[in-house]
Amino acid sequence: MAAALALSERGRGRTAPNPNVGCLIVREGVVVGRGWTQPGGRPHAEAMALAEAGAAARGATVFVTLEPCAHVSPRGPACADLLAAAGPARVVAALTDPDPRTAGAGFARLRAAGIGVTIGIGADQAARTMAGFLQRRYQGRAEVTLKLATSLDGCIALASGESRWITGAEARAHAHLERTRAEAICIGGGTLRADAPRLDVRLPGLEARAPRRLLLARTPADLPAGWTWVESPRAAAALAGVDHLLVEGGAGAAAAFLAEDLVDRLLLYRAPLLIGAGRAALGGIGLAGLDAAHGRWRLLDARGLGVDRLELYERRR
Amino acid sequence: MAAALALSERGRGRTAPNPNVGCLIVREGVVVGRGWTQPGGRPHAEAMALAEAGAAARGATVFVTLEPCAHVSPRGPACADLLAAAGPARVVAALTDPDPRTAGAGFARLRAAGIGVTIGIGADQAARTMAGFLQRRYQGRAEVTLKLATSLDGCIALASGESRWITGAEARAHAHLERTRAEAICIGGGTLRADAPRLDVRLPGLEARAPRRLLLARTPADLPAGWTWVESPRAAAALAGVDHLLVEGGAGAAAAFLAEDLVDRLLLYRAPLLIGAGRAALGGIGLAGLDAAHGRWRLLDARGLGVDRLELYERRR
Repeated sequence: MAAALALSERGRGRTAPNPNVGCLIVREGVVVGRGWTQPGGRPHAEAMALAEAGAAARGATVFVTLEPCAHVSPRGPACADLLAAAGPARVVAALTDPDPRTAGAGFARLRAAGIGVTIGIGADQAARTMAGFLQRRYQGRAEVTLKLATSLDGCIALASGESRWITGAEARAHAHLERTRAEAICIGGGTLRADAPRLDVRLPGLEARAPRRLLLARTPADLPAGWTWVESPRAAAALAGVDHLLVEGGAGAAAAFLAEDLVDRLLLYRAPLLIGAGRAALGGIGLAGLDAAHGRWRLLDARGLGVDRLELYERRR
Repeated sequence: MAAALALSERGRGRTAPNPNVGCLIVREGVVVGRGWTQPGGRPHAEAMALAEAGAAARGATVFVTLEPCAHVSPRGPACADLLAAAGPARVVAALTDPDPRTAGAGFARLRAAGIGVTIGIGADQAARTMAGFLQRRYQGRAEVTLKLATSLDGCIALASGESRWITGAEARAHAHLERTRAEAICIGGGTLRADAPRLDVRLPGLEARAPRRLLLARTPADLPAGWTWVESPRAAAALAGVDHLLVEGGAGAAAAFLAEDLVDRLLLYRAPLLIGAGRAALGGIGLAGLDAAHGRWRLLDARGLGVDRLELYERRR
C-alpha cells in the first residue's frame, strides 16, 4: 500500500475533480502493474495498472488507495467492472469512496465476483494523500496549504522590505515542486504590488505544471492578465476545479485564511538566520487568547533542505 | 572520550573560573575511575577519578577532556604530578589547556614519566562542552546563550502581552535545567516589569542551583534585592565568576546581545501554534541587509519536547 500511495502522490493537484488514486498489482511477489490517475482524471489508476498487468492480473493482489468506482461514465468504464473481469484474487483498499455513486457499491461488486476485499489498510496516509478530493466531497472546498518562508525569529522580510532571499536554493526548489501539486496558488494584493511574483514552476521538465494564479483583493483592479480575482479566502477555496489551493502570502493573505480557519496544511520553511524587528509572517488572525491557539497543529514531517529546515504541520480537526 | 565528555557536562556552569573537565579511567575494558570538576573548581576531575581508581590506575588508560594541569596551587596538587605518580600506561586528552601555566607543560610532564599521550580525540565536542572556560580564556568574556520561546510565527506573546504559556511543561522544565548550567541569567527591564520572573530553578532536587540574576537596564533604579545591575551586554559577559551567561529576554535584551554579536548559542523553543500580529521575539539587531544575516548560525541539535520543538544553534565564528 505504501507503493500505491507513492503512485497516488504523482497525481496530486492534477486530477480534479477526480481523486488522485494510486494502484499496484502484485502477483507472487512481483509487481505486474502500476497505475495512477492521469492528468484531468482519466484513465483511472486501476485501468492503467490493469492494462499494464494484462493476463497477469488473474489471481493477483490489487492494492488501491480508494474504492474502485462502480459507476460507468462517458469517459470510461467502471473500475469495479474492469477488476471483476480481470479476476484478481484480492483487492486491498485504503478508503471507501465518498461518491454516492460508489460508496460501497464498488466493493460489493468485487465481492459478488468472488474477489476477496480488505478495506482500511493505510487509511490515514491515504486520507492525507487524497485530502483535496476528500475535502471537496466532505466540506465543499479545496484543501488549503499555507506556505511560509521565515527567519528563525519568524520574519519574512527586513523592515526595509528586503526578502530575497531568506531561504536557499533547495528550499525554494521544494516550494516550486509544491506548486505542481496544487491546482491554484493565491497571493494578496500587497505581495503582488511588492514582489510581482510570477508564481511559475522553475524546475526543469516541470515548467508546464504551473497552477492557476489567484489574487485575493477587495476589488479586481490591477488584476494581471491570466489571473483570477477572489474576494475572500472562502471564495478562493470554493473555486470549481481547485481541490488543492496553495496560499503563498503575504502576511495579510496568510492571516485572512487562518482567521477563517481554512488552512489545512502549513509548510514552514525556515532559514538559520535572525532578522530582528523585521516584517512578521502573519497579520492578525483574530486570536482571543493563548488557550485558543493550542492544540490546533500537529507536526507531520521535519527535514533539512540545504541549510534550511522544512516543517509540515496539519490542522487537527 | 564520549563518557568523559558526559562527565564534563555535569560541571558546566558550576566550576568557574576553573574548566568543567571530565575524566574516565579504563583498565582492561573496565571503568575503574570517574571524575568531574567539583562545584567551585576543586577537586579536579583527574584527582577525583584517580582517588576512585586507586591502585587500578596503574597501567590503565585515562581519558580526560583537557590537558592535566601542571601547576601546583594552594588548593591542590598538579594533576600531571598525580597522574605521573599513579602510573597509567596512556593519557588520551581532547584539548590542550590554554592556561599559560600548563599549555603543553602538563603533557610534557606525563611523557617525561613514561606515559603515552594522545591529544585531540573529541576536540570539537570538548570545545563545546568547556566553551565557557575557553571563551573566558581566549575572549575574556562568558559564553552567552540566548533562550527564545516562540510560536511558529516567531511571537513571544500576544499583542495583549499574554505569554503564559506558549511552550508546554516539558519545554519549560528543559529551560529550567539549562539555568543550572549557567552562573548567571540576564533579563531586560521591560521583562522584569512585565513578568517579575523569579528566574529560579523549579526542578526537584535542583532548587539550590539557581544562578545569579542580572538586570540589563540603563540605570540601577528598581533593581530587586539580590540582583546585579549591568549597563550593557558587554558588561554582563565580562562579569568575573560568570563563564556561562543565559539571556532570557525580552525582545530588547535579546536584540541588544545580538546587536553586539555576543550570542554564542541560541536555544530556540517553539510551540506548534500560530499567534499572528503578536509581539516579536527580537527588537532590531542592526542588520544592514540579508547578506549579513546568512552564514552565522549552525544547527547543532533538534528534538521534540512534548508537543514543542527545541533547536540548538551555535554561532559560526
